[in-house]
Amino acid sequence: MNNILKEKLNYLKNSRVKSAMEYSLLAGGKRLRPKLLYGVVKGFSKNVEDLDNIACAIEMIHTYSLIHDDLPSMDNDDYRRGMKTCHIEFDEATAILAGDGLLTEAFYLISKANISSDKIVKCISILSAAAGCNGMIYGQELDMFFKDYGNDFNYLKDVHKHKTGMLISAPLKIGCILSDKEELLSLFEEIGYKMGLAFQIHDDILDYTCNEKELGKSNSDIKNNKLTSINTIGIEEAVKLKDKLYDECINILKGVNNFNSNNLIELILNTKNRKK
Amino acid sequence: MNNILKEKLNYLKNSRVKSAMEYSLLAGGKRLRPKLLYGVVKGFSKNVEDLDNIACAIEMIHTYSLIHDDLPSMDNDDYRRGMKTCHIEFDEATAILAGDGLLTEAFYLISKANISSDKIVKCISILSAAAGCNGMIYGQELDMFFKDYGNDFNYLKDVHKHKTGMLISAPLKIGCILSDKEELLSLFEEIGYKMGLAFQIHDDILDYTCNEKELGKSNSDIKNNKLTSINTIGIEEAVKLKDKLYDECINILKGVNNFNSNNLIELILNTKNRKK
Repeated sequence: MNNILKEKLNYLKNSRVKSAMEYSLLAGGKRLRPKLLYGVVKGFSKNVEDLDNIACAIEMIHTYSLIHDDLPSMDNDDYRRGMKTCHIEFDEATAILAGDGLLTEAFYLISKANISSDKIVKCISILSAAAGCNGMIYGQELDMFFKDYGNDFNYLKDVHKHKTGMLISAPLKIGCILSDKEELLSLFEEIGYKMGLAFQIHDDILDYTCNEKELGKSNSDIKNNKLTSINTIGIEEAVKLKDKLYDECINILKGVNNFNSNNLIELILNTKNRKK
Repeated sequence: MNNILKEKLNYLKNSRVKSAMEYSLLAGGKRLRPKLLYGVVKGFSKNVEDLDNIACAIEMIHTYSLIHDDLPSMDNDDYRRGMKTCHIEFDEATAILAGDGLLTEAFYLISKANISSDKIVKCISILSAAAGCNGMIYGQELDMFFKDYGNDFNYLKDVHKHKTGMLISAPLKIGCILSDKEELLSLFEEIGYKMGLAFQIHDDILDYTCNEKELGKSNSDIKNNKLTSINTIGIEEAVKLKDKLYDECINILKGVNNFNSNNLIELILNTKNRKK
């Protein structure tokens, strides 16, 4: 994935901001969202010529959200994926611009994908809605201002649905669009919400049981006294719920007609078993 | 314009971030970019049903760039258009998210415009290229790190071309696309660069000759020891060049075939005569 991501940004002028974008984009990560997109399209045996632009765009939007979330005025994190965060390695202004750049260029890349204009427009619609103020940005606000708003597990589920679930649903839904399976949009959206919630509870569990060195990032949720699944429903319930949610995703996928779910199920099992 | 802008954001959940977006978006401003778009399309007597989504999107991207430029780690401005800047009125995290939100929702709004998918894709391509890392973001970087890069007027022209010119060219070019006049893209792009440069030199002149109260914003360029047209070519040359550039725009517009340039020329003359 790193080679594709780097190549896709070739058209950009060399600059400090571009270096910062590449620094964060190529720092690794699970590449979960691109894998979900490829998984859906392959599962429907659809031959989509130009999936890479869209896969990269989704990963770029994910990376932009991490760079901005890590900023001093937000979560104020110094480490991510075992490396310095963007504003520590570069500077705050460059990190803000790198995030802005990744977000903007994501839409440029999709607009240049070699697929029909009708599908491009639908992809942009889904992705901007997922990343926007009714989606990820709203989730970040709920997460930051939770002290003013609410402090129970239902509230936390709402945070995760918006902050994480919608950008996990997006590649699943875009996969349906590209495979001409619009009738399955809400089913795959539901899978995305379940995965997002499972993933975040999983993060809480790992934050609670591992130290920072093992995780490669700061335990900023604990440091910032954030609402977590541990401090709302407790560790035992959290572990049970996480496994249940991953299993539900797998069961839904097994029930989809004319769909080879092997790739996606393997991906979910790997995610379920991750230790960091 | 304010009513249209407010109405176009109706679909968003009420939130602190939405309030911050509206605060900055509805704070006034010259609405130059939307006016340029309407001016081109009217000039070609084209009846475009759904211009408002695109006009609002361009203004939203302009506003996002102002919010982020004003942040403490960038220009660190407390006032804009006679009002507190977004991060002063709200807080830094909210201002960053408001900028992110305006940028993201701009692409959503365009994707939902009631025009053909082919044209939507071209609009998104032009706008994201103008706002992105080969455009406005690159200009902001050149502007911020000028001490490391260059300090003459040619360098400053390059800053303005990227930071301002490209997002002024964008509505002009999008107007051509929507009017089925793709053969005029580079001509209208050129007009945008000239206007952007004239506009910025004009700002430098006003910063030099007016006080903050008259301007309704801080003289942050002087405060930050920024490169300006005054400290590179001097006030007299700056005034001459500004007028020459505005006049060149008018002359080019007069020469466009089958185009009623009255609206745009009036807009340029008003801009040329502005005192703040």
